[in-house]
Amino acid sequence: MARIVMKFGGTSVANVERIKKVAERVKAEVDAGNEVGLVVSAMSGVTNELVGYVRDTSKLYDAREYDTVVSAGEQITCGLAAIALQEIGVSARSWLGWQVPILTDDAHGSARIQRIEGEEIVRRMGEGQVAVFAGFQGVDETNRIATLGRGGSDTSAVAIAAALGAERCDIYTDVDGIYTTDPRIVTKARKLDRITYEEMLELASQGAKVLQTRAVEMAMKHHVRVQVLSSFEDKPGSLIVDEDEIVEQEVVSGIAYSRDESKITLTRVPDEPGSAAQVFGSLAKQHINVDMIVQNVSPEGGYTDLTFTVGKDDYDRTIKLLQDKDSGFAYDELVPDTNVVKISVIGVGMRSHAGVASTMFETLSEKGINIQVISTSEIKVSVLIAEEYTELALRALHTAYGLDTE
Amino acid sequence: MARIVMKFGGTSVANVERIKKVAERVKAEVDAGNEVGLVVSAMSGVTNELVGYVRDTSKLYDAREYDTVVSAGEQITCGLAAIALQEIGVSARSWLGWQVPILTDDAHGSARIQRIEGEEIVRRMGEGQVAVFAGFQGVDETNRIATLGRGGSDTSAVAIAAALGAERCDIYTDVDGIYTTDPRIVTKARKLDRITYEEMLELASQGAKVLQTRAVEMAMKHHVRVQVLSSFEDKPGSLIVDEDEIVEQEVVSGIAYSRDESKITLTRVPDEPGSAAQVFGSLAKQHINVDMIVQNVSPEGGYTDLTFTVGKDDYDRTIKLLQDKDSGFAYDELVPDTNVVKISVIGVGMRSHAGVASTMFETLSEKGINIQVISTSEIKVSVLIAEEYTELALRALHTAYGLDTE
Repeated sequence: MARIVMKFGGTSVANVERIKKVAERVKAEVDAGNEVGLVVSAMSGVTNELVGYVRDTSKLYDAREYDTVVSAGEQITCGLAAIALQEIGVSARSWLGWQVPILTDDAHGSARIQRIEGEEIVRRMGEGQVAVFAGFQGVDETNRIATLGRGGSDTSAVAIAAALGAERCDIYTDVDGIYTTDPRIVTKARKLDRITYEEMLELASQGAKVLQTRAVEMAMKHHVRVQVLSSFEDKPGSLIVDEDEIVEQEVVSGIAYSRDESKITLTRVPDEPGSAAQVFGSLAKQHINVDMIVQNVSPEGGYTDLTFTVGKDDYDRTIKLLQDKDSGFAYDELVPDTNVVKISVIGVGMRSHAGVASTMFETLSEKGINIQVISTSEIKVSVLIAEEYTELALRALHTAYGLDTE
Repeated sequence: MARIVMKFGGTSVANVERIKKVAERVKAEVDAGNEVGLVVSAMSGVTNELVGYVRDTSKLYDAREYDTVVSAGEQITCGLAAIALQEIGVSARSWLGWQVPILTDDAHGSARIQRIEGEEIVRRMGEGQVAVFAGFQGVDETNRIATLGRGGSDTSAVAIAAALGAERCDIYTDVDGIYTTDPRIVTKARKLDRITYEEMLELASQGAKVLQTRAVEMAMKHHVRVQVLSSFEDKPGSLIVDEDEIVEQEVVSGIAYSRDESKITLTRVPDEPGSAAQVFGSLAKQHINVDMIVQNVSPEGGYTDLTFTVGKDDYDRTIKLLQDKDSGFAYDELVPDTNVVKISVIGVGMRSHAGVASTMFETLSEKGINIQVISTSEIKVSVLIAEEYTELALRALHTAYGLDTE
């Protein structure tokens, strides 16, 4: 017997029939002797509809009112799921964010969970009652509904699992697990049985859209074991766990790619203290997130070329900011390039194995792919290449690191 | 300067454009120096959609979960209305039932308001902030959402007006006021400037569907002046007030009709104590509401004919109950008749004027209309006639009581 949290996204609860199927899956866990907390998203399409109403009403809306409107989507599914469970003989009740309560800060629209008071719920779960939670929502200290931002239901589920002391948090999605790379591109991609939080975090933030980055961060912080599995098939998924739960660690666990990159090069920036700080300081003030950065001193001396990447969403604003005559940025030319992709090789095993980066560079070189920017972290090597090589690079690297299925 | 409550129903907030129009009307009151509480229903169609989801999920649903789902409709409108007001420069915030709080009993699905804690809201209204309330909802003492039953937004509005000490509660509807009778039938029907609570209560429960009976009862109890007026035209409506606010009272204020009646006659019921009690006791136990009752002793003695009416919704159940062999009801024949209509002449002036009933009987007699059942109260005379005479009777009575417009 275990206490588990099960989370179903919008497509899994898209209509009453699917909500009934979710109830059946929950019942199977209850029948197996488990205590279950169920976290549900809004029916797919509902959140977009509600967001549309808000935007049609006002361009500059009050985020607290936005949250009041948008949180209604999960409220509906939450009550329906409780009814669907009762209908098949499973004791259940719905818990809205303010009823639990799930206390958040006041960053409405992208609030962070601060505390969950789960004692009463744990007691009821012990008596066999399934707790059905509205995902994506909490309540701030002034008693106003706060939402966690898009995709926040994953974060809700992990936070609730932590608060309830759950043994596992199962995230049901439209994929059946975490793959070594995108199986739509690399047919030999392999489903991972287990992956560490650190690797998943890199995968999630590097463009694998299975799990919200914040949810993984929270799982890592609270040591919540997270399973990603399919809503539509009944088979085990991939488990995201602490490193010590993985006996034999591969050197490279997965290869991610992100097309959400744009590269900007500023040529002949004065090579003096403060030049880079001025540029990146200005971008930071505008909440523009800079990812990769390289700087090459020009051979003639006194000048440097500065290259960096920003997300495609921030691209226009960045260009505008840098071209602003009044800003006082010193450079010769601004060279933009949006036809780039970032490829990342990820694995905690890298810490103790040399040669991971050189394998990457050699493999790409053999295929004639030019590397534009390189950045590394303890468990990751990322390169920026021309976007047209995405598929070629992914397949070659997947083979080179021995990740292909037989 | 006054404090007023404005309530808009589902058709008045059916989409974002209409919500913006509602905001404009509220702004006009704010600009005129009034403190405004705004009560909104769900967008028309939304409540039915949500109720449909619940019923598709389970026939025997948990009323607390029903309330969780269905209350989301008003929550959405409430947030949107606050945003629409802010958009045109009016300070506003939304208040859900649990945020106010509007405390109710635990009769989920048709809860009654027990207490509203309005101090904080009154304070904010004093600072110029419009309070936007989700109609139809409150919270019970266990912190679960409770809805007031269909049409409950009228009741919300009146209860909120009472709690805020509002000078007036304006109910915006798709009609422009209270008429002497149904203007679709009697073209000479006249809009009433003022009507008493007692008369409105009779009109509402006698089939004039402008205002919820419970809302009128609550207004009478708390002396809340209620105005019924059009959402779509900008002109005064009808005011529902205490009797002493009406200087010159007409003898008859209005004529109502209800097609929701069915007549049942039981012939040759033993004329002995307890016969009627047995019948009506059994109906009461099944929550069947009996309206009109007449009993005639048969000339031969020892037996009586018992005639009464029930709502059309309860008709089948009533017949089934009375025909149940095991019930032990003693009668000769059961004569049902659903082709009947109840016509009621209403007016507080009746208390001090004789002849109202006889005018009614004479008028109907002159038109050759047979009266099947009569019942009277202090301010009302009701008759049951064949349904086919509805329009003829209404027009004749409207003229007979001098209610026609010139």
